[in-house]
Amino acid sequence: MIVDIHGHYTTAPGELGTWRQAQVAGRSPSELRISDEQIRESLEGAQLRLQRERSTDVTFFSPRAIAMEHHVGDAKTSADWSRVCNDLIHRCCTLYPKNFAAVCQLPQSPGVAPKNCIPELERCVRELGFIGCNLNPDPSGGNWKDPPLTDRWWYPLYEKMVELDVPAMVHVSGSCNPNFHATGAHYINGDTTAFMQFLTSDLFKDFPTLRFVIPHGGGAVPYHWGRYRGLAQDMKRPPLKELLLNNVYFDTCVYHQAGIDLLLKVIPAENILFASEIFGAVRGIDPETGQPFDDTRRYVEATALSAPDKAKIFEGNARRVYPRWKPAR
Amino acid sequence: MIVDIHGHYTTAPGELGTWRQAQVAGRSPSELRISDEQIRESLEGAQLRLQRERSTDVTFFSPRAIAMEHHVGDAKTSADWSRVCNDLIHRCCTLYPKNFAAVCQLPQSPGVAPKNCIPELERCVRELGFIGCNLNPDPSGGNWKDPPLTDRWWYPLYEKMVELDVPAMVHVSGSCNPNFHATGAHYINGDTTAFMQFLTSDLFKDFPTLRFVIPHGGGAVPYHWGRYRGLAQDMKRPPLKELLLNNVYFDTCVYHQAGIDLLLKVIPAENILFASEIFGAVRGIDPETGQPFDDTRRYVEATALSAPDKAKIFEGNARRVYPRWKPAR
Repeated sequence: MIVDIHGHYTTAPGELGTWRQAQVAGRSPSELRISDEQIRESLEGAQLRLQRERSTDVTFFSPRAIAMEHHVGDAKTSADWSRVCNDLIHRCCTLYPKNFAAVCQLPQSPGVAPKNCIPELERCVRELGFIGCNLNPDPSGGNWKDPPLTDRWWYPLYEKMVELDVPAMVHVSGSCNPNFHATGAHYINGDTTAFMQFLTSDLFKDFPTLRFVIPHGGGAVPYHWGRYRGLAQDMKRPPLKELLLNNVYFDTCVYHQAGIDLLLKVIPAENILFASEIFGAVRGIDPETGQPFDDTRRYVEATALSAPDKAKIFEGNARRVYPRWKPAR
Repeated sequence: MIVDIHGHYTTAPGELGTWRQAQVAGRSPSELRISDEQIRESLEGAQLRLQRERSTDVTFFSPRAIAMEHHVGDAKTSADWSRVCNDLIHRCCTLYPKNFAAVCQLPQSPGVAPKNCIPELERCVRELGFIGCNLNPDPSGGNWKDPPLTDRWWYPLYEKMVELDVPAMVHVSGSCNPNFHATGAHYINGDTTAFMQFLTSDLFKDFPTLRFVIPHGGGAVPYHWGRYRGLAQDMKRPPLKELLLNNVYFDTCVYHQAGIDLLLKVIPAENILFASEIFGAVRGIDPETGQPFDDTRRYVEATALSAPDKAKIFEGNARRVYPRWKPAR
């Protein structure tokens, strides 16, 4: 079985954008009306087509990350928007229970305590069967104004994640800072930043079962694995494997063979989860291979990794990290 | 000949720190008094020892990056501090003309136009024989408040760089944002961010001979080379080689074999310059190899790259990118 743990509903019907525009403009949006047929249409030619073409079985599916926009409006804005987006994800997963499992957006807001996200997380997990959440390490959208992920500011949310036994993917949203291109800089920086926050803290002493997935292949981290091992050693921290690798996982959203080769070489197979980030941070065909950049399954298959290790990456680790996920029959 | 293009004076005598403390505290610092003997002592057991041990010939030497602290004080603070630091680098290079070539700190200050740096750049290059500069893409120290490097805000400085025929290494300083560990996150993020700014702009149409070195192996960029090629293609930009690789170079400050292997595999040899970041972002011995993490020469030597390509990385590219550098006889 091939489990893709990182997919976003980037192809939602236009009504969702219209709703959001009304909300952001301060007009009271009317109830979102999208038919099942529209949802099917939005998925059939995109995520479901790619699943068929690439023979993947299920995608852990969450709202469009760049549109979470926690920096827009206030906590109420974010709560309403998250609820609408999560409900739509729930509908996708109900229509296609074999193809999708639901991961929620959290109603974060800059300067607002993360415990404020607990009711929506509980609703999604307990009432709607969601199996994980996306956690934005920078709700200010590129201004990095809130405390680091290792600050006690975040602890009440972590307590709830532990209680519910759901992991978080550390995932920024759009950038309102002109220095940071969203998918080319802010996303990758967010990943690298979060890892270094974890490295310098004792967060996982306080939460031994808390689990984070760092997407986009872990940002810059595997490429600089020697730097991180060396920095930890210079700081008299334990080896990274002991310090972080019971709690921190990387996905395979790295869009060329050499990158995946490095990832699978330096990071233990137990800490890597297959993902492709469909649909579609990078949509094109790589002229060097004639294949889509984001067809990450090809890269993983092409590595020298053993079959048991590949099975962990494609399925086993997803079951361990997202224990609430059970394949639909 | 082995040219290391990225070294900082991290071992300067304590008097420099005392001078800086007085300056930051608003006391008028007395003239900095450091003897030649003190300078020799500060270098002999550190940078010069590593040059001997690793058989490298010359280091392009600049003030300690984390201490540039452009975010501290105002433009006058930065001008005075830069002058003191650059003068000290000049003394190092005068004492050891075969071992060091000088690269300057710029007196940047948040919100102050970069053209303000021109007099110090001219002084360093024309009067003192400096061969390059370090350019901080975020003078605000982790708050990213100034315009992107591709904004016209920076153009007067670029015009001067072109006129003087000196490159800039894109190098952030310390971070006053608790989200960003300096050497573990802010440095790497700065590299990634700058590259993506270049990718999305026509800067090098305006300045066809402007040259930037992105240190720390290019941040996350080579690891995500497929992502960057794909993003450029999705945006209908030219291929990266054509768009950026006449102007953008990466150093080899990547502290493990797998990282250097990837760098040398995906980036053309013409665009890679040997460097080790001594002394010493990461100072320890890698327990997996028994060798220092930052002995990057070993990694480069161990790759399958051809001898002519290695010669480019170790020397030829440095001569091209830093044409003002001439080996001392």
